[in-house]
Amino acid sequence: MQIQTHSTPSISEGMVISHLRMLAPYTEKLQKALEDNDYTLPEALLRTPFDTEVLETICKNTERFSEKTKTVLLVGIGGSYMGTCALYDALRGHMEHFQGTPAPKLVAFATVDPHVLNSITELLAKCSSAEEIVLIVISKSGTTTESLANANILFSQFAERFGNESANRQTIVISDANSPLTKRAVEQGMLTFPIPARVGGRYSIFTAVGLVPLRILGFDIHAFLKGAQEAFTASTNTKKASGAAVLASFLFEAYLQGARVHELFMWNPELETLGKWYSQLLAESIGKERDDGTAVGFTPTVALGSTDLHSIGQLIFGGRNDRYTTFVSAPTAWESGHRFSSDSPFVLPVFEGKEDGKVTRAMYEGVRNAYATHDLPFVSIELASVSERELGAFMALQMTTILFLAQLFDVNAFDQPSVEKYKNEVRRLLTS
Amino acid sequence: MQIQTHSTPSISEGMVISHLRMLAPYTEKLQKALEDNDYTLPEALLRTPFDTEVLETICKNTERFSEKTKTVLLVGIGGSYMGTCALYDALRGHMEHFQGTPAPKLVAFATVDPHVLNSITELLAKCSSAEEIVLIVISKSGTTTESLANANILFSQFAERFGNESANRQTIVISDANSPLTKRAVEQGMLTFPIPARVGGRYSIFTAVGLVPLRILGFDIHAFLKGAQEAFTASTNTKKASGAAVLASFLFEAYLQGARVHELFMWNPELETLGKWYSQLLAESIGKERDDGTAVGFTPTVALGSTDLHSIGQLIFGGRNDRYTTFVSAPTAWESGHRFSSDSPFVLPVFEGKEDGKVTRAMYEGVRNAYATHDLPFVSIELASVSERELGAFMALQMTTILFLAQLFDVNAFDQPSVEKYKNEVRRLLTS
Repeated sequence: MQIQTHSTPSISEGMVISHLRMLAPYTEKLQKALEDNDYTLPEALLRTPFDTEVLETICKNTERFSEKTKTVLLVGIGGSYMGTCALYDALRGHMEHFQGTPAPKLVAFATVDPHVLNSITELLAKCSSAEEIVLIVISKSGTTTESLANANILFSQFAERFGNESANRQTIVISDANSPLTKRAVEQGMLTFPIPARVGGRYSIFTAVGLVPLRILGFDIHAFLKGAQEAFTASTNTKKASGAAVLASFLFEAYLQGARVHELFMWNPELETLGKWYSQLLAESIGKERDDGTAVGFTPTVALGSTDLHSIGQLIFGGRNDRYTTFVSAPTAWESGHRFSSDSPFVLPVFEGKEDGKVTRAMYEGVRNAYATHDLPFVSIELASVSERELGAFMALQMTTILFLAQLFDVNAFDQPSVEKYKNEVRRLLTS
Repeated sequence: MQIQTHSTPSISEGMVISHLRMLAPYTEKLQKALEDNDYTLPEALLRTPFDTEVLETICKNTERFSEKTKTVLLVGIGGSYMGTCALYDALRGHMEHFQGTPAPKLVAFATVDPHVLNSITELLAKCSSAEEIVLIVISKSGTTTESLANANILFSQFAERFGNESANRQTIVISDANSPLTKRAVEQGMLTFPIPARVGGRYSIFTAVGLVPLRILGFDIHAFLKGAQEAFTASTNTKKASGAAVLASFLFEAYLQGARVHELFMWNPELETLGKWYSQLLAESIGKERDDGTAVGFTPTVALGSTDLHSIGQLIFGGRNDRYTTFVSAPTAWESGHRFSSDSPFVLPVFEGKEDGKVTRAMYEGVRNAYATHDLPFVSIELASVSERELGAFMALQMTTILFLAQLFDVNAFDQPSVEKYKNEVRRLLTS
């Protein structure tokens, strides 16, 4: 993974260096969190990819699913499912239903959606054995309304089709060790995994929350954790400013200069869900009131190159400029090996002798040049490949960036006090 | 379709009424555009759903695809493909690969994506006859780099598998009548359809751009046009302020009061792509410089309820408030008929005796109540159903809203002068 920063007239290296200086003491705290084996600090999320004990337990207990699973039904919302979906979409792609690969399929249930629930009725009817399906229910608190609603309906259907015993055996619950949900799951004899109490949903991808479904889906979670370990180790180096600290400093300076939107501009369409994972991390961690009463935050957006240049290109280059852009790409994944044919009815002179990857590269570089020329602030992150290891590294990098950014903004990266505002209303309506 | 506006302390009905007054003369112009049979005004996009001649030609010439088509490969970018995808995702849903319905599948090609291109190689290898595939290439100018690149590779593969003659017979080109692309397509004996010269890509869903692929995919384009006709007729009523004028006035007043983000908050997940269609319409039409040099525009975002409350809920209720929200829902589509089981391990007291649709309704109403209580500005649009007719009405409503909004902002809704800024760079890199 490579990070390239780019100064503009308004965002200078000098300003960034002064923010970096402020982050030095916090870097020491993060370094301690790496070894916080008992998860006492909220920053102990940095410890999660190093937790070999958890990894061993997961590998041992999920082994029995590895051969027969055809579909994983993942129930969760927000941080409980978004990270797994990000990896799945990136690595198995959105075209998997055309490819007929034997790898297990993922169906995620976040909101309560009748289309998806009805499809599962059809899917279950077609299954020949209960072992083809694994139902994974993830809720930190064990009381999330949408997740319990989906799990309730799915479990009933499963039990109706294959009996209660099979449904229990094929269901996994991931929740706080002491939640009411864990308690009931244990009573039913379901497999359960805990989430460390101080690790919040949006920072939980390297715990059982991500590792259990990813492992059952057949991904290389060892490589995924390896990437995360390297990124967390690099980010907490106290000797010199890390990539995460630099990214946070640029982003904060951009905010001071008026940026209010942070756009992740993905140059590989399969990374769109990774962009959404980052959006929730940024929005929930930084969008809040400071102690002095001022409200801060970025509106996160995800754009796809080159597609969205035809959707928002005019706004970017001609509209109000309140946007800070992070270009994310994996250039090695641009080549399909298809070469343009020069005797096709669909030709342009510029295609002569070129391959498809060259077109995407020209788009990517052309757009960055245009951003630079028009003083639109941006940084670029290039992944060496779309792989478990690079995705683990990217996610860990962004988590640390957000922790640094929260320090600069002087907000708590770990809480979400305002979410209760609508939950109270919903509770009132549901019980009335 | 129902529109509910909601005043806040900062956005009062009085302010909105003064904007509405400004729109009266333009409404008269739009009314004329409805009968502009020769498409002389840029506003003649309002004429497109009434063009029975075009409709008949399309129905007659696409008839031969109706029986055997299994997959439509749609090549286009921006307005050339987004509207069709919006309908497809809304009506056939993102779960179609689990359902094994016999209806044709849509695969869209916007950016040049090796995963998608490689999947098509596999798909073509599995096809038993050329008639199973229709390749539709859409480019207004006939020179769009990404679209020609995708079409080049797809056509080569098609011709290699089934011969040039079959590939020509199964390919449809939709472009300006005089574009170089149309000329070459006609030479090859391909089926071609024109786009009226003054109707721009983002306003073209009711022309051949949308109607040809939608018809071949098996949708009811008559109902789709019927919905659009009704909405355009209602929007151009000079007797009283229409829904479109009211929506534009609220949105403009919100901008004057500091809103910089326009969020479409979709309460049916299958409407996400419709949100993206609206995003490009808003961004490209309003994000621009005025003659006086000031740059205006909204950053468009799409959120999904209730999912995204777990992703951006904290930002919405606790972060900076620079957002104007349009809630879009189709409450009749919330019911799957599944009832909660009370002896499941996954229960909450509030589920007692309820169906799944009740949970979504409580979320929806609870969130709107919370917005109102916290003075977050919003309007609500409720579709009577997720159907061709309602989607046609919604899209037409939003197009007219944008035309009114451009009047209030005093910008040209039809051009995109700044897009050249990156295109020049890309061209330079591709030819160097």
